[in-house]
Amino acid sequence: MHKVSLEQVFATFSEHWSPRRVARVDDYDVRVVKVLGEFVPHRHTDADEFFLVLSGELVIRSELGDVRLGPGELAVVPRGVQHQPVAERETRVLLFEPSETVNTGDAGGELTAEPVEL
Amino acid sequence: MHKVSLEQVFATFSEHWSPRRVARVDDYDVRVVKVLGEFVPHRHTDADEFFLVLSGELVIRSELGDVRLGPGELAVVPRGVQHQPVAERETRVLLFEPSETVNTGDAGGELTAEPVEL
Repeated sequence: MHKVSLEQVFATFSEHWSPRRVARVDDYDVRVVKVLGEFVPHRHTDADEFFLVLSGELVIRSELGDVRLGPGELAVVPRGVQHQPVAERETRVLLFEPSETVNTGDAGGELTAEPVEL
Repeated sequence: MHKVSLEQVFATFSEHWSPRRVARVDDYDVRVVKVLGEFVPHRHTDADEFFLVLSGELVIRSELGDVRLGPGELAVVPRGVQHQPVAERETRVLLFEPSETVNTGDAGGELTAEPVEL
């Protein structure tokens, strides 16, 4: 059993929209990501997706309405709901989702990125 | 889709070892809890358990060794591993675990608490 420091993980990379897997919990991943700009609108057909903002500000545009999350604020995008994460400045986010979840969901495209194992 | 502020959730309760469910992700819970003192040693036979310290300091004593977590530090206790959370001062923790997970695992006893739905 070992500990992971989120601060130390964030210090290891600078890319945006490129998730790092910081833990596995059964068949789920805990991932962190730095985001900036507009992500591709997409949906995850078979899984919910949990967002917790650690720093900065994240807007999740969705067909259920938009939410604006600051540090210490969280939301869950239900399975099947199209959503688009947007950040006007660099924002750090913690995600909880099934390990098989692909970041771009049904949309694919150039922002598709496998989570990087620490 | 709605947002949850962890600060606002923590403002609603003062009990220790009494988890609040702040989100559901598929069949998993995201819970937060205030802890102080020694919890009962226990194990979860069928599920991993994720701990992220938000404030304070948490020691997880376990049969795999101990970890000491400060703010922004996390660890996963693998399924089946006996562990005992201990906090010398009030500490705020975020947990990911299956919704069916009982906080005291196989130990039971007076600290057993169903997560409180917000």
